[in-house]
Amino acid sequence: MRAALNLAPVMNLQSTRIVLVNTTHPGNIGGVARAMKNMGLGELYLVAPHRYPDEQAVWRAAGAGDILERAVVVESLDQALANCQFVVGTSARGRRIPWPTLDPRRCAKQIAAAAQRGARVAVVFGREDRGLTNDELQACNLHLHIPSHPDYTSLNLAMAVQIVSYELRMLALADELPDNPQQEWDAELCSAENLERFYEHLEQTLVEIGFLDPAAPRQLMTRLRRLYGRVQLDEMELKILRGILTETKNTIEKSSY
Amino acid sequence: MRAALNLAPVMNLQSTRIVLVNTTHPGNIGGVARAMKNMGLGELYLVAPHRYPDEQAVWRAAGAGDILERAVVVESLDQALANCQFVVGTSARGRRIPWPTLDPRRCAKQIAAAAQRGARVAVVFGREDRGLTNDELQACNLHLHIPSHPDYTSLNLAMAVQIVSYELRMLALADELPDNPQQEWDAELCSAENLERFYEHLEQTLVEIGFLDPAAPRQLMTRLRRLYGRVQLDEMELKILRGILTETKNTIEKSSY
Repeated sequence: MRAALNLAPVMNLQSTRIVLVNTTHPGNIGGVARAMKNMGLGELYLVAPHRYPDEQAVWRAAGAGDILERAVVVESLDQALANCQFVVGTSARGRRIPWPTLDPRRCAKQIAAAAQRGARVAVVFGREDRGLTNDELQACNLHLHIPSHPDYTSLNLAMAVQIVSYELRMLALADELPDNPQQEWDAELCSAENLERFYEHLEQTLVEIGFLDPAAPRQLMTRLRRLYGRVQLDEMELKILRGILTETKNTIEKSSY
Repeated sequence: MRAALNLAPVMNLQSTRIVLVNTTHPGNIGGVARAMKNMGLGELYLVAPHRYPDEQAVWRAAGAGDILERAVVVESLDQALANCQFVVGTSARGRRIPWPTLDPRRCAKQIAAAAQRGARVAVVFGREDRGLTNDELQACNLHLHIPSHPDYTSLNLAMAVQIVSYELRMLALADELPDNPQQEWDAELCSAENLERFYEHLEQTLVEIGFLDPAAPRQLMTRLRRLYGRVQLDEMELKILRGILTETKNTIEKSSY
């Protein structure tokens, strides 16, 4: 049994709200909807968009039309944030007054912590050209900065939402994704014993075809052991490799009659 | 020289290659260029794009026109990967034969580890509608899967590149060592081109010894590609494996006289 706290989901992605302020291009709104749905987010608020609804938004949303249909259009940021308890604002660096600013990964952790305390969370994205105003940023608990390259810092709006949504999803999945994922595989790993038998079989064959000179073996078997050792062969692969060795021998014997 | 290698940064983002295969919409190519430049990547290869150059690409690239201008257009994936030593292919889940598959974060670590060993790295993205073919995926050392929500798994191409580029940038900024630091190695990683030649040689030999029936190949070559692809062969090992194939043939021919 896991502790009660651990039974609760880290974060309800569906109700983590994305807020877009004064978006100019409806295509970007569609791109945002798609990015959200891809990552399991569901709640979109639009603060005074320039052109909305618009067929470009629908087109770019592709299979995420339901997010657009449910999107809530409001007149002011205050309205969009009315019932939220933890608000993150996306920001370029270099504001006059320093604000707690985190990259998307660290920010996602703060969001999860807030959500775990029962907070309703919103992440606010600004205008394509100017981002959020200082007043808008000061309505936020925390600022988020995507560490873009100094040569070209201006991310497309939907791309920025994609990155933040991705980080939220990675965090939500963290429980399911162990650090060393033991992947699904279609065959068992081979045993050390069978691997040794393969090496013997291999060595014998290499002598037979004249590739390995027992009087001067050099590092050949060492290198082959390093190769087949580090790949972690499964039993099916081992069977194939041994089958190849067997057929090599059979072919040589047949040929020599 | 080893010492010089260790002084190098963890990863040269500028020369981490992004390869797009058969892209349909030129706007996506522009979106990819922008995503790359935002994250500090610089090398774009286009394999037989449907429409390129195209003004939609330029428009979507916004301030990343220089990446488009330097983009290399080639006819085949082989050409795009010719001098690469570590190739990552993006993939949806559910291939018939499981392949080593990581999420973008863990994959970025593997890329950094390969780069640290001096490998030239390519990350390959498939068609908007169908992704990469099984053959294309089998040319890759590792598969990358973006853990999208099961309700809507299909990411826009530029979004997928954005996420992967973001992870590479986060890693480059973290200046942290990968989880599984690769040790110093005594030989260069083999190129994708030489690996392909080995597969051809191997297949030919397997037919010759009667282990592979061209009329009923089943999954044999796929399994062998998965095996040799995931081990990241070095040039010395490749030379040994090809030497074995050559000697096998010689022995059969000598025996039949």
